Amino acid sequence: MNCQTNQDLANLENKIVLTGDRPTGKLHLGHYVGSLKNRTILQKKNTQYIMVANLQALTDNMHSHFDIAKYSIEIVKDYIAAGIDPNLNTIFLQSEVPALSELTILFLNCVKYAKLIRNPTLKEEIKDKYKADSVNMGFLCYPISQAADILAFSTDYVPVGLDQAPMIEQCNDIVNSLNKLSESLSLKKVQPLFSHHPRLIGIDGKKKMSKSLNNFISLSETNEEIRKKVFAMYTDANHVKIQDPGQVEGNTVFAYLEVFFDDKNELNTLKARYTNGGVSDVSLKDLLYQTLLNIISPIRELRNSISDNSIRKILEKGSVEANEVAQKNLIHIKSSLAINL
Amino acid sequence: MNCQTNQDLANLENKIVLTGDRPTGKLHLGHYVGSLKNRTILQKKNTQYIMVANLQALTDNMHSHFDIAKYSIEIVKDYIAAGIDPNLNTIFLQSEVPALSELTILFLNCVKYAKLIRNPTLKEEIKDKYKADSVNMGFLCYPISQAADILAFSTDYVPVGLDQAPMIEQCNDIVNSLNKLSESLSLKKVQPLFSHHPRLIGIDGKKKMSKSLNNFISLSETNEEIRKKVFAMYTDANHVKIQDPGQVEGNTVFAYLEVFFDDKNELNTLKARYTNGGVSDVSLKDLLYQTLLNIISPIRELRNSISDNSIRKILEKGSVEANEVAQKNLIHIKSSLAINL
Repeated sequence: MNCQTNQDLANLENKIVLTGDRPTGKLHLGHYVGSLKNRTILQKKNTQYIMVANLQALTDNMHSHFDIAKYSIEIVKDYIAAGIDPNLNTIFLQSEVPALSELTILFLNCVKYAKLIRNPTLKEEIKDKYKADSVNMGFLCYPISQAADILAFSTDYVPVGLDQAPMIEQCNDIVNSLNKLSESLSLKKVQPLFSHHPRLIGIDGKKKMSKSLNNFISLSETNEEIRKKVFAMYTDANHVKIQDPGQVEGNTVFAYLEVFFDDKNELNTLKARYTNGGVSDVSLKDLLYQTLLNIISPIRELRNSISDNSIRKILEKGSVEANEVAQKNLIHIKSSLAINL
Repeated sequence: MNCQTNQDLANLENKIVLTGDRPTGKLHLGHYVGSLKNRTILQKKNTQYIMVANLQALTDNMHSHFDIAKYSIEIVKDYIAAGIDPNLNTIFLQSEVPALSELTILFLNCVKYAKLIRNPTLKEEIKDKYKADSVNMGFLCYPISQAADILAFSTDYVPVGLDQAPMIEQCNDIVNSLNKLSESLSLKKVQPLFSHHPRLIGIDGKKKMSKSLNNFISLSETNEEIRKKVFAMYTDANHVKIQDPGQVEGNTVFAYLEVFFDDKNELNTLKARYTNGGVSDVSLKDLLYQTLLNIISPIRELRNSISDNSIRKILEKGSVEANEVAQKNLIHIKSSLAINL
């Protein structure tokens, strides 16, 4: 499904949505516009599971297990501070739901190696992260683990970027295999949920904002850090004096204003003035700084008021709920395949 | 460890031994001499876990899940009938112990794909069973799943054939990785337990006795079937008349007598007589038939008196026990890697 506007998202109801993050760092503005805001809309009329994917984070971070543990708490702080309501969502820790591992082990048997490595998403990620051959089996099995997550909760929709569509296809391939294996199985296919927000570019103006590229502004950034990062952004190299005509296209500051500055009329006026000459880069950056401050500072304040312990309680409660549902679906799948006593 | 005699085995004490079978068919004489008899010795002074490896059987038999379920019961009948005591051993069903799947998922992250596919045992089995590239991920992950089984029970010894030594090495590689990852982990290495019995050849005189080669005599075979199979065995193609000198080497019937006929003096006399000429193949085969009958018929009688339900109870009880131990070890490993709340 394609949700072009927030209204499209708000119209979705009575669906089961599965989403989540790998806890490899604090969440940033890219997550905020790309997923967190959507979750606050989806949580109102749907059953939303939000998974802190610590096992999937470990697939390429076994050596940083302490960091993964730390960020498993930190990102839930980001969730709550960004308006995700633990009473409206089931927020859980992946490693607390053993059914996900059990399902993964079963699903491994439905996927041929030759087909798996042709998965474009996996191929791309292996190319980015690994030297040839050094990929570990956990990372290779990642798409199968995602299928387990999806089927454990009878998921209708998974919000994904376009580049992740092959992961959904992999899951539905497994659904097909399983349904063929047993007459008592009629698992439903999952649908990708594409949202209208394009990927936020990094503060370096390149590619997407990401932790690994170190081109992000996190949701817990201090004012000073935000200012520093905004003022280091590229604008237009030929826009030297205030009077010089400036270019909007390829201008990182405008790209951010496009996403975060709500008054589109005022923004259009500003663009026209900048193009004609007469707007300083400093004033432009100051506008972006104030805009981001209005978003981040309330999140950060709220974030700072949340204790690790209260997050642990949220995860404990969510994991118990997630376990119940996943366990039920696991037992159904296992008994349909006569894997029981 | 090399156990050259039954006495060597009987001397082993206070060790944790893990063994088991993939429930892909009823057990046969190859299992009897290669493992079941050893288990009846080991059970006396050691803690022995016997796993009905139904999940591992499914890795290349997803389509035959009903057969796997059936044989999961049948092979435990074979165990009990062959003298394996459910009160001295923990006999359990792999799929009833979720910790095994959870450990496998974790261990996948410790094994590089490039190294895994160089594992000689896996390589050989893939070559035997699959066309290039059609191997499924479950089968590929098999050695890692075995490592999970071994570490779940703090195993000291795993009885294996020489060809399976690389599986033990793979497990110990994972032990090394895990111990390096956390100071609170000092998992012990597992040792292979090589027994003195060489692989029993098939009734066709070729390779080893195995279900897939259909050259076996099962422990539930009727007398008539045993007779038929023994009388179809090759002896010596040049031994046509009774008076003809016969060859002992390469003679399948003698190969079996060597394994199953206890009185070695009498056997040596018989060999000499056969070599000189004067012993008929019929009398030779009749001796083997009677010998096998003495072994199989009491097993078969006992086997027939055992109900499916009593086997389910044995597996239920064993699985509860296995779960407790595996869960404890899982929690230790997970918490050492900060994978907890």
